[in-house]
Amino acid sequence: MARRKIGIWLIGAKGGVATTVTVGLVALKKGMCGPVGLVTHLPLFEGLDLPEYGDMVIGGHDIRTTTLYAEAQQLASNNHALDGSLVDRIKGELDKIDKNHRSGTLVNVGSTIEKFASDDLKKKGETPRAAIERIQADLKGFASDHKLDQVIVVNVASTEPPIEDDGLPTKWKDLEKLLDKPKKCPLAASSIYAIAALDLGYPYINFTPSLGSAPAAIQELAIERGTCHIGHDGKTGETLLKSALAPMFAARNLQVMSWVGHNIFGNMDGKVLDDPSNKKTKVRSKDRLLHQILGYSPQTLVSIEYIESLGDWKTAWDHIHFKGFLGTPMVMQFTWQGCDSLLAAPLVIDLVRLTDLASRLGEKGLLTFLASFFKSPLGTTEHDFVRQFQMLEDWVETQKAKAS
Amino acid sequence: MARRKIGIWLIGAKGGVATTVTVGLVALKKGMCGPVGLVTHLPLFEGLDLPEYGDMVIGGHDIRTTTLYAEAQQLASNNHALDGSLVDRIKGELDKIDKNHRSGTLVNVGSTIEKFASDDLKKKGETPRAAIERIQADLKGFASDHKLDQVIVVNVASTEPPIEDDGLPTKWKDLEKLLDKPKKCPLAASSIYAIAALDLGYPYINFTPSLGSAPAAIQELAIERGTCHIGHDGKTGETLLKSALAPMFAARNLQVMSWVGHNIFGNMDGKVLDDPSNKKTKVRSKDRLLHQILGYSPQTLVSIEYIESLGDWKTAWDHIHFKGFLGTPMVMQFTWQGCDSLLAAPLVIDLVRLTDLASRLGEKGLLTFLASFFKSPLGTTEHDFVRQFQMLEDWVETQKAKAS
Amino acid sequence: MARRKIGIWLIGAKGGVATTVTVGLVALKKGMCGPVGLVTHLPLFEGLDLPEYGDMVIGGHDIRTTTLYAEAQQLASNNHALDGSLVDRIKGELDKIDKNHRSGTLVNVGSTIEKFASDDLKKKGETPRAAIERIQADLKGFASDHKLDQVIVVNVASTEPPIEDDGLPTKWKDLEKLLDKPKKCPLAASSIYAIAALDLGYPYINFTPSLGSAPAAIQELAIERGTCHIGHDGKTGETLLKSALAPMFAARNLQVMSWVGHNIFGNMDGKVLDDPSNKKTKVRSKDRLLHQILGYSPQTLVSIEYIESLGDWKTAWDHIHFKGFLGTPMVMQFTWQGCDSLLAAPLVIDLVRLTDLASRLGEKGLLTFLASFFKSPLGTTEHDFVRQFQMLEDWVETQKAKAS
Amino acid sequence: MARRKIGIWLIGAKGGVATTVTVGLVALKKGMCGPVGLVTHLPLFEGLDLPEYGDMVIGGHDIRTTTLYAEAQQLASNNHALDGSLVDRIKGELDKIDKNHRSGTLVNVGSTIEKFASDDLKKKGETPRAAIERIQADLKGFASDHKLDQVIVVNVASTEPPIEDDGLPTKWKDLEKLLDKPKKCPLAASSIYAIAALDLGYPYINFTPSLGSAPAAIQELAIERGTCHIGHDGKTGETLLKSALAPMFAARNLQVMSWVGHNIFGNMDGKVLDDPSNKKTKVRSKDRLLHQILGYSPQTLVSIEYIESLGDWKTAWDHIHFKGFLGTPMVMQFTWQGCDSLLAAPLVIDLVRLTDLASRLGEKGLLTFLASFFKSPLGTTEHDFVRQFQMLEDWVETQKAKAS
Repeated sequence: MARRKIGIWLIGAKGGVATTVTVGLVALKKGMCGPVGLVTHLPLFEGLDLPEYGDMVIGGHDIRTTTLYAEAQQLASNNHALDGSLVDRIKGELDKIDKNHRSGTLVNVGSTIEKFASDDLKKKGETPRAAIERIQADLKGFASDHKLDQVIVVNVASTEPPIEDDGLPTKWKDLEKLLDKPKKCPLAASSIYAIAALDLGYPYINFTPSLGSAPAAIQELAIERGTCHIGHDGKTGETLLKSALAPMFAARNLQVMSWVGHNIFGNMDGKVLDDPSNKKTKVRSKDRLLHQILGYSPQTLVSIEYIESLGDWKTAWDHIHFKGFLGTPMVMQFTWQGCDSLLAAPLVIDLVRLTDLASRLGEKGLLTFLASFFKSPLGTTEHDFVRQFQMLEDWVETQKAKAS
Repeated sequence: MARRKIGIWLIGAKGGVATTVTVGLVALKKGMCGPVGLVTHLPLFEGLDLPEYGDMVIGGHDIRTTTLYAEAQQLASNNHALDGSLVDRIKGELDKIDKNHRSGTLVNVGSTIEKFASDDLKKKGETPRAAIERIQADLKGFASDHKLDQVIVVNVASTEPPIEDDGLPTKWKDLEKLLDKPKKCPLAASSIYAIAALDLGYPYINFTPSLGSAPAAIQELAIERGTCHIGHDGKTGETLLKSALAPMFAARNLQVMSWVGHNIFGNMDGKVLDDPSNKKTKVRSKDRLLHQILGYSPQTLVSIEYIESLGDWKTAWDHIHFKGFLGTPMVMQFTWQGCDSLLAAPLVIDLVRLTDLASRLGEKGLLTFLASFFKSPLGTTEHDFVRQFQMLEDWVETQKAKAS
Repeated sequence: MARRKIGIWLIGAKGGVATTVTVGLVALKKGMCGPVGLVTHLPLFEGLDLPEYGDMVIGGHDIRTTTLYAEAQQLASNNHALDGSLVDRIKGELDKIDKNHRSGTLVNVGSTIEKFASDDLKKKGETPRAAIERIQADLKGFASDHKLDQVIVVNVASTEPPIEDDGLPTKWKDLEKLLDKPKKCPLAASSIYAIAALDLGYPYINFTPSLGSAPAAIQELAIERGTCHIGHDGKTGETLLKSALAPMFAARNLQVMSWVGHNIFGNMDGKVLDDPSNKKTKVRSKDRLLHQILGYSPQTLVSIEYIESLGDWKTAWDHIHFKGFLGTPMVMQFTWQGCDSLLAAPLVIDLVRLTDLASRLGEKGLLTFLASFFKSPLGTTEHDFVRQFQMLEDWVETQKAKAS
Repeated sequence: MARRKIGIWLIGAKGGVATTVTVGLVALKKGMCGPVGLVTHLPLFEGLDLPEYGDMVIGGHDIRTTTLYAEAQQLASNNHALDGSLVDRIKGELDKIDKNHRSGTLVNVGSTIEKFASDDLKKKGETPRAAIERIQADLKGFASDHKLDQVIVVNVASTEPPIEDDGLPTKWKDLEKLLDKPKKCPLAASSIYAIAALDLGYPYINFTPSLGSAPAAIQELAIERGTCHIGHDGKTGETLLKSALAPMFAARNLQVMSWVGHNIFGNMDGKVLDDPSNKKTKVRSKDRLLHQILGYSPQTLVSIEYIESLGDWKTAWDHIHFKGFLGTPMVMQFTWQGCDSLLAAPLVIDLVRLTDLASRLGEKGLLTFLASFFKSPLGTTEHDFVRQFQMLEDWVETQKAKAS
């Protein structure tokens, strides 16, 4: 019997996370790296029918014109995020994957992101409708060129400025009408890609804090087309730690008075977040969980600053000021020195594998059991990391039970 | 109807933790402090019939001759662990409680602890059997003097040198025979107190890493007498953090290569732990959980050093070196500046309240649902803090369901 | 022979630093504290004829109406910056000193500082000239009431918004003409006080980053009146560390790529610095020295954020990313947990003692040998802390040599 | 005129520091790296007649049989201490330098170091006298083979167990007599090499904490032979920071109550220091300076622990607990993440360049002006880093003045 083939379509296909996903997937296929960092290689997942790396094909959209090899070499020379000699050994594969990349859309991405786009792209003004049609043609071409059984679209592009979705129509039929009226349609690229994918029945994963598939109308579209989606904002560093530590303060009834988090890093994501408007989207996403875990709102401060020399190495300092018995103030501090792309990439691969399985098993709409992967998981208010992970465990055990 | 009266009998009654428990309980009775740090004041516990502070009476054993007021003032002047003016305002109550204290036993406590004992006590050589009888007389006197419905014995004394329980008889009837033969009986004070309490049907809680009620024969005694017990080693600081953080590394499949923890502090507990033999017991207790949570054994190092100027402020630095995707090493570090007595004391009060309730509800043997309070919980291998806390939640919900 | 009497006139007399100076001076007079933190008690200064604490009298200006006792108790209860029982024991002295306080001026202090002023003061619009005359009357009254031989004015008020002194006349006679023209005179209160003091021949010390006596025209006034002054911005914490550490990186030819410093604290100074305009003055002062010590400009980031729970405890995290041999990036990080008022107050006392001596020895104009006390020392570009301290040592040795 | 040729003879020629010196020197010769980390490239040294990299030849002794290329590749793969592709490009040069290496001596190096030696070497029992003669033959062969004008011997071997030099004869003629009596001669290899070098008139630099040329009798030998030497223990990390920070605490009269330093790392040096006897030598060297800078002795704790995963990345956490004005305790903490070999290697190169110049300028005996390079500089009690560096500045300026 022929093996199923899975397409991974990355939005922001030349960016740090996508490049690392691509390099990592090639390395996994060739046995050049082990499974460290991949959640789906934990014993829990043994026995599940997850797709294998050899059956995956990568493509994607980007607004920049560069090559995967050039981007990967930059990640290698820039603070050792990747191993340069590994990148050299897989140059051939990377060059081939470049051919699967298509031009992205700039709809409402904001001026900071636009600056990275090619001139051609900037000139091309397109309505949301036209962008969707172009994207869908790209996706269908990818599927037919590679004889794919499934295409999973993952947004790993730079963070867009915040869009208030309060004013958005909550019904798909109403939202759809706005797609021809650029001035009335506040949706930005992340949602345009979501619509394009879901409308074709392809799952969509939003790994960024951008709006993506969050609006109710787009959620309705997913259900209507019988497909699934999830997001948003991959939980890779400081927020992951918050979601592991805050439950401890809560369960011990230690009163958090203030929680300050300073993040510094120097990759392209950092440059985009240096625009206060884009940063706002991110900070909001990082700051939400404390209230929900603690049940009250301590003073919080989250900063994200671009420090060029750090490259992809996200460094965070958190200062937690809490009150103990008899009112005595105490302090916990932590620093985190993690390579952002290397923390994000395996989660993208995990999400693709789990989403493919869920899709085959008939899951529709939000895949809330994937909450542990996200800073602001859609469809749940659970932010305690262990309890989120138990949602995943429960789902896995249920599937195993059904299968046996 | 007359209110039930609960006695709390503290082993190490003049020590830092016991003094803070005593000060705290007086402050709670008088409404001089709030419930911060007390787990049993979380919303989860609302509706449970937990004993009230006004119904609790404190007594205890100690080997030192000092006063609670003197000890409390030292904690106040020594790095602000307690508020000196609060201590002044409750001097009368503390002086009264001093009268409920009796002389402890030195059976096998080791030379470092012995040094703190009064000369009278040092001279008194007693067999384990004699010590148990003396302790039981003290407990019965306490109960009758104060018309108590229950006495709960809590060990908060200094850590004893390690005792290998491999050679111990596993049956109570065999162990009991050794009590008259001091040279053949390796049990130390913590177990002597446990036997004395359990034999009278009183619950026993071991908040220290000493052996206490852990031996199988003593567990059998508890069942036989129809009472309950739990331990050991209160989880208040660095280990608490490990049990909150390690599950995150495990669930993300990030490979911990080494986990180094350096602890410095300057209270009496620190002086005792400066003896390498006593320290061994403690380090062993702190170091156990990583293997159980991670499923493998990274290189670990745990040090505890006595730095006089820090007083009761336990300061810990942990350095976690882990491998991410594609084998790249990353680092998390944290520092913890917590006041040890203030972190421990509310947990002791919580344990007493929950143990009293469990006892009334007929629980016998190990109260494993209290695992989240301990570094080395008896009766379970679960070390993930959130999952341990869920054991408590489950028990509470079950009792609520039964009651309604 | 009658002892000389020295007046210390504090601008911001009810603020955290001034209150701590006042409490500290009373405690020193009464032998209630030792000399820890006082530079002038180092062996170096033995044999110098420095004024004694018993000969000092405190007065000052403030725009707030509160009492020293109330402020001191707040510093005591607010995170243990002062010892409450010490404050209680000297309440009588503090109440007396309150009577030496006069209303300050609001000239150009900016809206954030104005908010703290009494309504009466806000209504009183006065020209710079009128303010100077009023201040001078206060100073002369203080001197005659207490039969003082010297009055030393020290600015410890909140930081004003930055004033560009580029457009200021550089000659005193030209600047003086502007004092009657409020709209043309950009000088703010810190400079108004400086003019008032220096014009009377009284020394002026600017412990804040505000402009103070820095303008060339005011420096000329000091020379003309035969008196001395110095500033600005007391070096108490993070910048002190920078000035001790940066020379090490420079001398080892380790290339600092970026130096990030995040400061959090919650005292009134913090509230004022939460106004971005006032903060700008401070950040500028903190950020200057790296270029001067290193000889090049790494990327720097300095943030100061108001976190209420921290009170007077300034907590700083600095992340220094540097390149070593063969281009390898390395990292140093530090955290600093210091009580701002307690770090500043002894330096104010030291500066008063040294300035009094310098004045008696005939020093005129800038006292550059005091550079080690300041973040942005006037009259020198030396920022290496040890070399700055050697300037003080050299001056002291010279005076000793002259005297013998 | 023919250029002078300088030989650098490294004791421990295959170790981490020596390998990095060798790789670095080749890279400098070929213009493959810049001068970052090299002190002698600071503007201060412009105009001095320092030897150029093209005129230097490397040789050395080691007790292990491996190749420079293998060691360098291990440093490259082991946590990115070196760049693997750089190492590949200079393999030819490294292989040539291997031929300049000779077998070292095991005289009194202790069992932990002996374990690394080849079996042949272990069998060879030689008297100190015989070892010296063999070493001198090697040095003379090196000089004649390469037509060298100077040979400078640098000890970068592993730390030996401590040797008390109290009982050593203080006269060279008396010490010399012991060289034939192995049982009476407590000198270890580091001193044997020092004698061999100095006796031939070659300068000797001790970059390790081992005894080396410190004994008075060996110092006398250096003077007699008209040559120079210096040591000991290169100051590269935590101690460097102490010598930059402690003067700040001293000059501010902030009372250091305790200074705790925990060092973790995983290179071969670390394995040797895991032997408590060898560690003792190191800790003693690291702990000395605080008393000398502060003028009193705070409680100190210095630990060095072997954590394999860290490789050459020395990570240190220092906790400084100090008392400020009015007795309030405050805290500074720092962490240092530096690559030990890369911090040490450029200093070795600097020391060779400066020692060659000093030797040509006629300096004899201890080169105390090089104190800033050492944890325990011979011939001076100055430990303040900036003041030590000024000793170097003064010497340089004096030489410049003489030359002009």
